[in-house]
Amino acid sequence: MYTLFIANKNYSSWSLRPWALMRELGIPFEEKIAPFGSDSNWDEFRSFNPAGKVPCLHASKAVDVVWDSLAIIEYLAERHAGVWPTDGKARTWARCAAAEMHSGFTAIRQTCPMHVGFRIQMPATSAAFNHDIARLNELWNQGLDQFGGPFLAGAKFTAIDAFFAPVVFRAQSYGLALNEKSAAYAQHLLQTNAMQQWQSEALTESWREPGHEQAALAAGNLLADLRA
Amino acid sequence: MYTLFIANKNYSSWSLRPWALMRELGIPFEEKIAPFGSDSNWDEFRSFNPAGKVPCLHASKAVDVVWDSLAIIEYLAERHAGVWPTDGKARTWARCAAAEMHSGFTAIRQTCPMHVGFRIQMPATSAAFNHDIARLNELWNQGLDQFGGPFLAGAKFTAIDAFFAPVVFRAQSYGLALNEKSAAYAQHLLQTNAMQQWQSEALTESWREPGHEQAALAAGNLLADLRA
Repeated sequence: MYTLFIANKNYSSWSLRPWALMRELGIPFEEKIAPFGSDSNWDEFRSFNPAGKVPCLHASKAVDVVWDSLAIIEYLAERHAGVWPTDGKARTWARCAAAEMHSGFTAIRQTCPMHVGFRIQMPATSAAFNHDIARLNELWNQGLDQFGGPFLAGAKFTAIDAFFAPVVFRAQSYGLALNEKSAAYAQHLLQTNAMQQWQSEALTESWREPGHEQAALAAGNLLADLRA
Repeated sequence: MYTLFIANKNYSSWSLRPWALMRELGIPFEEKIAPFGSDSNWDEFRSFNPAGKVPCLHASKAVDVVWDSLAIIEYLAERHAGVWPTDGKARTWARCAAAEMHSGFTAIRQTCPMHVGFRIQMPATSAAFNHDIARLNELWNQGLDQFGGPFLAGAKFTAIDAFFAPVVFRAQSYGLALNEKSAAYAQHLLQTNAMQQWQSEALTESWREPGHEQAALAAGNLLADLRA
């Protein structure tokens, strides 16, 4: 049995990745939420994860402690079918795109922290931000064209959709300039059971963490806060 | 046959990862160097890599284009023995540590860009930097203790050593505060054939790129430049 440690669903983009994958693939797990506090949570997070971060997967009563979202994906891929595409070309593409997301798209991540509940109108954006958006559209379009959609690497939800799930919430919250094909993909992903459940639970969370709230508000003008 | 596209050996930390792994494992490849220019190289790098970055691996005359250092590792792991440790616990640990490096250790990476030829004395460092160094020592010590050394995940050089190879060059250049066990590991890694060859070729490169030179010089006081 797996235990998946995550933080607030409204904020924690990295937590969403393995959570969405396991939900969509029907891999059972117990969820434990350690909400972000006003300080860094380092000590609390260290109690389940040596790196002091979320997410973290414990398997078989913590015999295996898997402490990074991409490593969790590969750990699950060794044990469950469907994590990555079975087609070799699609799998290679998906792994490249996931690793590019893991280390990159810095301008999008820094400017638009995930906040499921907010709707924000952004002012004119920087060159680095526009570069990231152009690359995102190009990458998504490439996957959708090459493997036929409606998911990024073909007909089924795989780890690469889980990896871009936080960007889809960002697109919804900040009105990111997706092109037509990318916007259709984002809408499709938002309708999956995993994304619907995560969104619903994010909107009913009672926790508020000033740092995360302010970082999101700094991106532009608040149009709405859909949280309960 | 593989073609591996990399940038300057003196600067390009991400290029070093797959290069060192393939050299140490004896996986043959043709090397192509696209040196960093004074602008971003976006267009040139885009000619072999859709993400406009290095490294990039082409397999079978570009039938497969693998454009991220971590994805290259997993691509090779599907095709060659010895990329990851065969022991399951060591492999899980190594994948977590590699993914943590891929997305993290930001303060070390930003403050101390890889520069094989420089020796720099750093002034007092920031809290974020010290946090990264403490985590690095802890992580390396954990691997060395748990799997017996002298490499991070046991007796053999695997992908996790390739992933931390750029940090070992940084430790040498900037005098990073490694503890005794970590320092011994760094020395061991520096003596491998791959690291010796990379270092030697980095020191004889003729290219100089002002942005990379200045970023390294900004870290402290230049004590020596060992390049030809």
